[in-house]
Amino acid sequence: MSTPLSDLQPGQVLARGVARALCELGLDCVPEMPLRPRLRADLMALDRKGEIWIVECKSSRTDFTSDRKWGGYLEWCDRYFWAVDDAFPTELLPEGTGLFIADGYGAEMIREAPLDKLAPTRRKALTLDFARAAARRLQRLTDPGLDGLAP
Amino acid sequence: MSTPLSDLQPGQVLARGVARALCELGLDCVPEMPLRPRLRADLMALDRKGEIWIVECKSSRTDFTSDRKWGGYLEWCDRYFWAVDDAFPTELLPEGTGLFIADGYGAEMIREAPLDKLAPTRRKALTLDFARAAARRLQRLTDPGLDGLAP
Repeated sequence: MSTPLSDLQPGQVLARGVARALCELGLDCVPEMPLRPRLRADLMALDRKGEIWIVECKSSRTDFTSDRKWGGYLEWCDRYFWAVDDAFPTELLPEGTGLFIADGYGAEMIREAPLDKLAPTRRKALTLDFARAAARRLQRLTDPGLDGLAP
Repeated sequence: MSTPLSDLQPGQVLARGVARALCELGLDCVPEMPLRPRLRADLMALDRKGEIWIVECKSSRTDFTSDRKWGGYLEWCDRYFWAVDDAFPTELLPEGTGLFIADGYGAEMIREAPLDKLAPTRRKALTLDFARAAARRLQRLTDPGLDGLAP
């Protein structure tokens, strides 16, 4: 069920560490959360008031510079963060975004992201999507027999 | 991660079957969902429009008659169902509630529950609670190392 750290891709290693840090901050998150066709967030998180964060994990300069879609995430969250390792050239990262420095075991928030609140209708739809995605994955993990049954 | 059917309590056996049926109906569910102190739903489910169902699983007449709190669930869902096995005396069940006949492998909806819509503020809070509970459980299953870290 749980994947050894050595079997994870570099971005997934960072995501595991950030997910632990988000948990400590009181947020619950879903990895690889689909937002719309061809756009998924590395981590989407909800705090107890319903605030929505997205964290994109970049394992290298190349990983960052080859990603032309990051601006597309801003309209799907209240706060947007990057997560990188401690060797990453953080001066590349755009202003007005938050930052975690992460490894596979944890992460530290270096810079809080500014709040840019979602419209209520989008927040409602995203929260429902998050809820259903998390529950579906949970059910698939706890009842493998489901796989033969449902799409 | 997944528990053999033989290790589940009778009510949990029914819950597994109902969860499969809910999935086929397009709903995603969380088992043993806390609603308030000393009240948790055997299954809480969300459909794609955000409608909230609760299903309580009763493994025997005694299990049903000893439960004095079932009416308390009605204010936490849009539709309320019972799930019982095919030997259960269904004439005991109150009117105005839905019914599944279940076993550990699936379930059939025998009677649709009437719709009694939640107030928007409660729906919003419940959907957020569901989302966070599902995500937290998912993270605990996929990252056992989290247990040492967080409450």
